[in-house]
Amino acid sequence: MTPPDPGKDPMPPTPGPFTGRTIAGLAADLRERRATSAELAERALDAIAALDPVLNAFVTVDAVGALAAARRADEELAGGTDRGPLHGVPVAVKDLIMVAGLPVTMGSRHFAGHVPDADAECVARLRRAGAVIVGTTTTHEFAYGPTGDRSAAGPARNPWDPARMTGGSSAGSAAAVAAGLVPLALGTDTGGSVRIPAALCGVAGFKPAYGAIPADGVFPLSRTFDHVGVLAGDAHDCLLAYRCLAGPNGQKEIGPAHPARLGSPADLARPAGPEGTGPVRVAWLDPAGLFAGDPRVVEAVRAASGALEEVRLPEDVGAALRETYTAVQRCEAAAVHADRLAEAPELFDPEVLERLRAAAEVPGWRYVRAMDARAGLAEAVGALFGDHDVLALPTVPITAQPLGRRETEIDGAPVAVLAALLALTSPWNVLGLPALTVPAGTVNGLPVGLQLVCRPGRELLLFEAESCGPRSG
Amino acid sequence: MTPPDPGKDPMPPTPGPFTGRTIAGLAADLRERRATSAELAERALDAIAALDPVLNAFVTVDAVGALAAARRADEELAGGTDRGPLHGVPVAVKDLIMVAGLPVTMGSRHFAGHVPDADAECVARLRRAGAVIVGTTTTHEFAYGPTGDRSAAGPARNPWDPARMTGGSSAGSAAAVAAGLVPLALGTDTGGSVRIPAALCGVAGFKPAYGAIPADGVFPLSRTFDHVGVLAGDAHDCLLAYRCLAGPNGQKEIGPAHPARLGSPADLARPAGPEGTGPVRVAWLDPAGLFAGDPRVVEAVRAASGALEEVRLPEDVGAALRETYTAVQRCEAAAVHADRLAEAPELFDPEVLERLRAAAEVPGWRYVRAMDARAGLAEAVGALFGDHDVLALPTVPITAQPLGRRETEIDGAPVAVLAALLALTSPWNVLGLPALTVPAGTVNGLPVGLQLVCRPGRELLLFEAESCGPRSG
Repeated sequence: MTPPDPGKDPMPPTPGPFTGRTIAGLAADLRERRATSAELAERALDAIAALDPVLNAFVTVDAVGALAAARRADEELAGGTDRGPLHGVPVAVKDLIMVAGLPVTMGSRHFAGHVPDADAECVARLRRAGAVIVGTTTTHEFAYGPTGDRSAAGPARNPWDPARMTGGSSAGSAAAVAAGLVPLALGTDTGGSVRIPAALCGVAGFKPAYGAIPADGVFPLSRTFDHVGVLAGDAHDCLLAYRCLAGPNGQKEIGPAHPARLGSPADLARPAGPEGTGPVRVAWLDPAGLFAGDPRVVEAVRAASGALEEVRLPEDVGAALRETYTAVQRCEAAAVHADRLAEAPELFDPEVLERLRAAAEVPGWRYVRAMDARAGLAEAVGALFGDHDVLALPTVPITAQPLGRRETEIDGAPVAVLAALLALTSPWNVLGLPALTVPAGTVNGLPVGLQLVCRPGRELLLFEAESCGPRSG
Repeated sequence: MTPPDPGKDPMPPTPGPFTGRTIAGLAADLRERRATSAELAERALDAIAALDPVLNAFVTVDAVGALAAARRADEELAGGTDRGPLHGVPVAVKDLIMVAGLPVTMGSRHFAGHVPDADAECVARLRRAGAVIVGTTTTHEFAYGPTGDRSAAGPARNPWDPARMTGGSSAGSAAAVAAGLVPLALGTDTGGSVRIPAALCGVAGFKPAYGAIPADGVFPLSRTFDHVGVLAGDAHDCLLAYRCLAGPNGQKEIGPAHPARLGSPADLARPAGPEGTGPVRVAWLDPAGLFAGDPRVVEAVRAASGALEEVRLPEDVGAALRETYTAVQRCEAAAVHADRLAEAPELFDPEVLERLRAAAEVPGWRYVRAMDARAGLAEAVGALFGDHDVLALPTVPITAQPLGRRETEIDGAPVAVLAALLALTSPWNVLGLPALTVPAGTVNGLPVGLQLVCRPGRELLLFEAESCGPRSG
């Protein structure tokens, strides 16, 4: 994707200091002395002070720490130590990923005032790459919701319309990037929690293959499906951040039975085309096999995809992916929270509490069957990649809904908002497949996202596919 | 253990043709032309015809197949082909382990008349070792019960008192060996289903390390805990059969996360003593940490063990082993049977149906937590092996109860029979540890068993420990 052109691409009404800026551009500014890291941090902090009272993207802003880190980054660069493209760049971290010395609350009163001793591994890697952490961003409580509007810190608000939800659970990360407050943010994605808010807020979001970015030090939701991901203004910045965060250690968590193993080991070598030379083969995956979405959204995204061929998921595979996702995620989430549910249920947000209580009722035999089903589902979905490298589909089949809304309409028929938000993203968590969302225009003035999915080890193809569609033509 | 001496060791009232015979002795008879395999098969078939109407140890007797296999075995031996110690020896197979061409019913009306196409891997190995399969033995329905008295084929009866249960679920295998109808039988053991009936019927039973004998072609109960094992008149025959059935392929099913991995890989090299040279270090494990058993049983077994030192399981570890066993076994068993429960519940035995329905209610979060707990439990139990090679304890803390009895008394207090039967065996299934039961005398004229437990890779020590206790002195 090319940087947004205000005359052509839709943009949120209030641009921030990093709107339209790429990390490569910022890196060039820093190295060519057009800016210092301290200046970038100040711009971020000033913009947060000005805009965040409306957006509520941030839970904690660490002005002192950010400026100190930025000055160190400047000194290192001046002294000839260059940590790479993130060196000196302001970033935000979801309030569910441990940052040593900052309050990290999981968006929950259960963790009010909780200050971790140690960084999550992904945060440690950010720091080693020279990034400047400016603060933590609003998460749906315990990441247990795709709307982003239920948090002890209050709802995050969509920069395109602050009366609307950002989507979640990485709600503040998406809002912060969409509003141009930071050029990059970390999120987590168990069923779509990076991609859903990225799509609804009009930014790029990348959920790599399962385990590619280590989840150590990230508060768990559903360990079989939990992924760490990145949000940025464009896809290339996601790739750049991914390269800094992933690596050999990132693969250590993938057990031999995880479906992500069914792909080749993740590497970033260019493997395009059947003979390794042709163009990326993109197929449109008809989303109707997963969810009957808003036709305007589906059409806009399909046009943006530029895909000529089409594949369909057999209907029973779609249903099985949904059942597998639901059973595993609920049982694992309830296992994480069983003690809190028993001892202090009143501290949960009421909707989160209700959902966790329902999760705690799912019988174990459904979990056992769901875990078993994954290998067959990986095979069924793998067959779609026989003649194609990348599947294209909408990220979310509806646009951002008003805060708190739980039922909407498509063609006059009622639709559950939570189910709609998760419908097109969660299948790829079941299989641990890399998935990228990129902005694909607007419908009624609200952003929609194009989702691109590939097999592990073929991540580069997502970014190639993204750059050759009609959107940037 | 030495062969029983009728003047010294208690024996079941009606000895069969293989009572007191070892496989080594039979093998010598065959090679020195004192007997043919066909004669051994005929002796087995005649004894089954005479005694099984009372014992109900067999579900299907394959006289034609057994005699044909025995004649082939004789021809091979005569022609110079010697397949080893099981060559020409009659064996029985639990009615839950696939035998190509014979009815295998899982003890259930759901599988009335079911004839598998292919042998289970353990049966194929038996055949390759030259064993002669004489028939299938009564299992508690779907192996889901430790009493052995609920089967579509009717209850198996204890050769020591046909009004009493054999224990289960490998009920008929234990009765057939105890009555001397065959010298060897295959069983399965998910929570004690080889060891419990072996102990209650006064024979030896060995459950090797998880995965050591492959479970392919064995109808599942709870895959995380399912083991294939062997029953024979004495421990040395169990070792001999184990060596024919286990092997490199047998290890393929152990995932990296299974606690059995925490031991060294299974091999049969002699690793005794801290420097590999000393005597086997046996500790008495006080069973009170797991279950308050019948003091007469506990004292008899302790005396038989010859153990001088004592170790105790911390009480919370015992409770956690029980909870882990229960949660995992129930969820996995309910996953196996969910469709049958929904579609044809009336075909189950009422008690099995009631237990499966309860199993289907166990919430998934308990399963997730239980699977997680295993690593810590392996560590806690592993600590007991710091100064000892082998733990000794009763196999079952009570003697064989009357058929159908579900509540008994110990010192005037009511005790649930099912819980008592499983209490001392199931912890070792949770951890995948090798465990052997050997006869340890009688209490009130009914057999009791000494259980010996070790770490994977140290199996030989069990058999050394068994042969140096006061029982055979």
